[in-house]
This record gives sequence, C-alpha cells and structure tokens, in this order.
Amino acid sequence: MARERKVTINVIAAEAGVSVPTVSRVLNGRSDVSPTTRARIEALLAQHGYQRRGSRRGEHAGLVDLVFNDLDSPWAVEIIRGVEDVAHAAQVGTVVSAIHRHSAATRQWLDNLRARKSDGVILVTSTLQPGHQAELRRLNVPAVVIDPAGGPALEVPTIGATNWAGGRAATEHLTSLGHRRIGFIAGPTSLLCSRARLDGYRAALDAAGLPVSDELIQPGDFYHESGFRGATALMSLPEPPTAIFASSDQMAFGVYEGLRQRGLRVPDDVSVVGFDDLPEARWASPPLTTVRQPLAEMGTLAARMLLRLSRGEETDSPRVELATDLIVRNSTAPLAV
Amino acid sequence: MARERKVTINVIAAEAGVSVPTVSRVLNGRSDVSPTTRARIEALLAQHGYQRRGSRRGEHAGLVDLVFNDLDSPWAVEIIRGVEDVAHAAQVGTVVSAIHRHSAATRQWLDNLRARKSDGVILVTSTLQPGHQAELRRLNVPAVVIDPAGGPALEVPTIGATNWAGGRAATEHLTSLGHRRIGFIAGPTSLLCSRARLDGYRAALDAAGLPVSDELIQPGDFYHESGFRGATALMSLPEPPTAIFASSDQMAFGVYEGLRQRGLRVPDDVSVVGFDDLPEARWASPPLTTVRQPLAEMGTLAARMLLRLSRGEETDSPRVELATDLIVRNSTAPLAV
Repeated sequence: MARERKVTINVIAAEAGVSVPTVSRVLNGRSDVSPTTRARIEALLAQHGYQRRGSRRGEHAGLVDLVFNDLDSPWAVEIIRGVEDVAHAAQVGTVVSAIHRHSAATRQWLDNLRARKSDGVILVTSTLQPGHQAELRRLNVPAVVIDPAGGPALEVPTIGATNWAGGRAATEHLTSLGHRRIGFIAGPTSLLCSRARLDGYRAALDAAGLPVSDELIQPGDFYHESGFRGATALMSLPEPPTAIFASSDQMAFGVYEGLRQRGLRVPDDVSVVGFDDLPEARWASPPLTTVRQPLAEMGTLAARMLLRLSRGEETDSPRVELATDLIVRNSTAPLAV
Repeated sequence: MARERKVTINVIAAEAGVSVPTVSRVLNGRSDVSPTTRARIEALLAQHGYQRRGSRRGEHAGLVDLVFNDLDSPWAVEIIRGVEDVAHAAQVGTVVSAIHRHSAATRQWLDNLRARKSDGVILVTSTLQPGHQAELRRLNVPAVVIDPAGGPALEVPTIGATNWAGGRAATEHLTSLGHRRIGFIAGPTSLLCSRARLDGYRAALDAAGLPVSDELIQPGDFYHESGFRGATALMSLPEPPTAIFASSDQMAFGVYEGLRQRGLRVPDDVSVVGFDDLPEARWASPPLTTVRQPLAEMGTLAARMLLRLSRGEETDSPRVELATDLIVRNSTAPLAV
C-alpha cells in the first residue's frame, strides 16, 4: 500500500509538472502552495482516485478547537461552558479562538490548527470563507457548526435551535395576554435564524386572527442600539403597539431604555419579550420574559458529536435543532383595558 | 552532567528505600506516588541539593492554559478575549478550563495539563488548594494569577486592579454630586478586593467630612440577589440613603430591581454606582455609572507575562495593579434638594 501510494505521488508530480514535495505539501494541507498549483494537483489527485491516508487517526492531541468570529458575544461564555464540560470529562482541552472575520487571522488560525494537531473543530455561527472551508476539509479535521449563519455551507453536522417555534411561542404568549398590536424588531436579514423568528411571529398573529402590519416590523441587527431605535420608531407610530417582541435579548434591553426615556414603564405601559435568555435577562429590571436558546446544551452536544467524529464514529443526524423554551418573568402583563 | 544526575537518582532511591522509577515519577511531577513517599523523596532531593532538569524548556506545545473556578462569571469572556488576543498573535492556543472548585476536577485538570505539555498557566481568582499548588510547582510550569482571591498564595506574578482607588473614586463622585447619606453593599469578606473597595468608600467619606455609619454598610457576595437584599435593607432604614454604591455591577442590577419594586426611580430618587463595567452596564436601563476594571487588559498583560516566563525571561514585578476608571453614565444625578 505504502509503495503504491508513493508511485502515485510521483505520477501526480510528473503530470502536474511540480516536485514530489509540492504534492506532499498539498496532501498535508499546508498553505505554502499557490492556489493555481494546488487546484491543478487536487484535480489530478481526484482524477486518479488517490486515497488520502487517514493521517490523523490515532494521533490525537487531546484538544478540540472552539472558534468564534469575535469574543464579544454575550453568549460566548455559555457555549464555552457547554463544550468545556464535555471536553474536560473526556480529558480533552478546549482551545478557544477568535478569528475576527479577518482573512489574515483566519489564515493564522488554520496554520495554528495544523501545528497543534487538534482533534476537531467547533465553529460558532461560522462565516468562514469558501477558500478557508476547503482548506479545513483538506486538513481532514472533523468539524461541527453551532447555529450557522446561513445555509449549511460546510458539509458537516450543524446544531441550531428551533427559532421558528421560539418566535411563535413568544408572540402567542403576548396574544394570549390580550395584546393585539405587537411590535417586532428583527435580526440581520442575512441570517436564517432571523427569518425563522419573524416567520414564527407572523404565524402566531395569523393563528390569533390578527393582521400582520408592516409598520410594526422594525429592522435590527441583534445589538442593543437597534433595539433602542426600533422601540423609538414603534412608539412614534400614530397607533403604537402595546407589546414589543425583540428577537434578541440585547435588543430587548435597548427597548427597555427606549421606553424609559419616554417615561413608559415595563410591563405596566408596554410588555417586552426577548430571545436568547442570556444570564443578564434574569438581572434586568424588571426581569425579562424571553425565549431560551439552550446555548450551553448546544455546546455540550457539539462537543459530544465532535468527539464521536474524531474517533471515526458516525453522527446520527447532519442537522439537529434543540428546543427553545418560553421563560415568563416580569416584563409581560395582560393588556390594560 | 547526565551521568552525575543519574548517580544522584540512584542514591536518592536507595536512601528512600524506593525504586529508581519512583524517584523519576516524583521528578516528573506525576501523581501516582503516595504522599508520604513523595514527601520523603522530596526531602532527600532538597537535602542533596539535586538540580532538577529544566525539562520543559524548548519543548513548547504552543498552548497556554487559562483556568477559571467556574465559567459562569459574566467577566470570564472579557478575560478570555484579552488572553486570546496575545496568544493568537504569538501562534499559541488558549486552552480554557473550569475546575469547579472540586478536588476531583482539579486533579483531572492537573493530569490533562501535564499530558498536553502546556507552556504555562493563567489562574483566574485562584482558590487552588495548597496540595494542588505544590503539584503545579512540581510540574515546573510558569504561572500567572489574575486578581487573586486572598493573599498571593502561589509564588507567582499576580495581576489585579486598583480596588481601593476605584472604591474611593466611586464614592467621591457621589459626594461631589451632593449626596451625604451613601449606602455601600460589600463583596465577600474573604476577598482582599472587597476590603479594598470598602476602605476606598470609607476614605472618600472621611475626605468629604462625612461620618461612616455602620447601618449604611450592607453585606453582599457580588451576586445579583445580595444587591437586591442590600437595597431593600438600606431603603427600609428610618433615614434611607440617597445614593447606593454596590461594589459589583451584578449587585448594582439587584439594587435597580430593589428600587423598582418600591416604585423608586434611578437616578431621580436614588443614584446608583457599580463596580466592574461589565458589557451589560452599558445595556442597563438607565445605563450604569460604574468603576471600570480593565478585565481584557488584565488578560492581555497576564498572557504577555506568561509568554515571557515560558521563554525563560524574567518579569518586571511580582504584583501589578492596573488602574480602574470611573465611567459616568446615567444612573447618578445631583442630590435633589
């Protein structure tokens, strides 16, 4: 077998017009090969049906990589906690990285990943560029994605939450309290989860026989400031809503501030619901009614799936959605009549 | 040299009445040696002035360990961000762990640390037990402590913040606004930083010619609930304060809720100051005036010091305190007269 493979590398090198070490570099996932040369070699490898060695099996470093775009997300620590719990118990270290959406940092991270021979990678709301995704595949490292931003771009298992059902439950809670004009503050339109939450909102209004009014739907980006702006716009309508569903907790806190600055009280004047159940939802004043995403559990599940993959086992399902829960606290009240 | 050392191990083994491998296990920091045997061997090693090999030099794993007691602290992610920034740039991975204050988890963590040949360890508010501290020393891994809970128990560099100056600045801000009855909610009495913040509060009252009244000082533990209880106790006094300085942001959020439930507004009725400047201080309603601890910078500095130590260089100072800053937002106002 070893001999057969060696011959093939020689053949590939000859056909590609490059040296044998260059082919090796491509096979080992190294980055110091020009993209065109790499593409030519990859094409020949595929054409000849070259069997890559399962080179990573058995040489486990006892490490998993947990990768965020940025470490400024308030829910990062929840996911870290879930992953670390499982990894720690399996005597595996959790390497936390931020790639800051910069190409150079991603390049560096991929180099570090190869150097440390990580057993696998958990990407959180990955926006890895296609080139980097291909490189990750070449490194032959198992990967799992938590809450992907868009469609499943990597051919790897993904873990999300039931965003549609959560959006529906939050809105239904408000209609059941008698609210009929319910504002909605959306997340970034580029994310599937934003769309799912909005559709859940619409479905609950439909179910309650209420019209879906465009003026009640405000744009947002999940951050605090856009919640503030959304609340200000909603309360400036000729007929303002009596309840606001902000599709992230951070935006809900912005809604609190927008209402406070107008002298309005939560929930006496306006009911507010968030989405996420960050730890600070409990500490808000009043404590926030919100849709709980099981962030730590998503981390736990991702780590379990990854460890299974790194042992060469199969996973059950390519896409898992964990259930959301409506947590009723003190920011919602029956419509005052 | 190697020969001389070998002889000494044999001598130690003979004198201790154990096998040579047992002495090796002690020298390598392994845990599978009984405490009494280990103590006997350590004593003989010290007595003979045995020079331990600097065995870790030059075999860098490209990893640093960042260890928390628990990963539920809201400021954990700030510290992770600071450490990861520096480590990433140095092509070093950041392994994040929680030891959950459980002896078994610490044992496991020490074993993992040895297995992965980490270049160094950053402990956050360490409460490692003396036995574990000794073991960490034996592993011969450089260590740095961020914000130690009590006195500097490990003989390693420690990084903190100027807690006394921060407590003084917060209180001075309130006295300069005309407040004369200022409540204080303390942190755990076991932590030096709690005491320093309280002493800063007292110093500022003295400087303003105001009496320090015991009834205005409430116990707390840095968590939300104790802030709520403290505010409730303070506002039930025959002569309640017009301002409250909670010595953590989480307790300040508890104060907000305690005041809200009594129908009191921040800052119109009562001014509130926190301590930490967590991200959620900006998102509170109203945004919280607080004392900023430079948590990310503390992480940055700890990582720099650790990388220097792991290269065998010296650090400048065994104890560094980074400056705190008063961040004035909307939760404080001049005393209404």
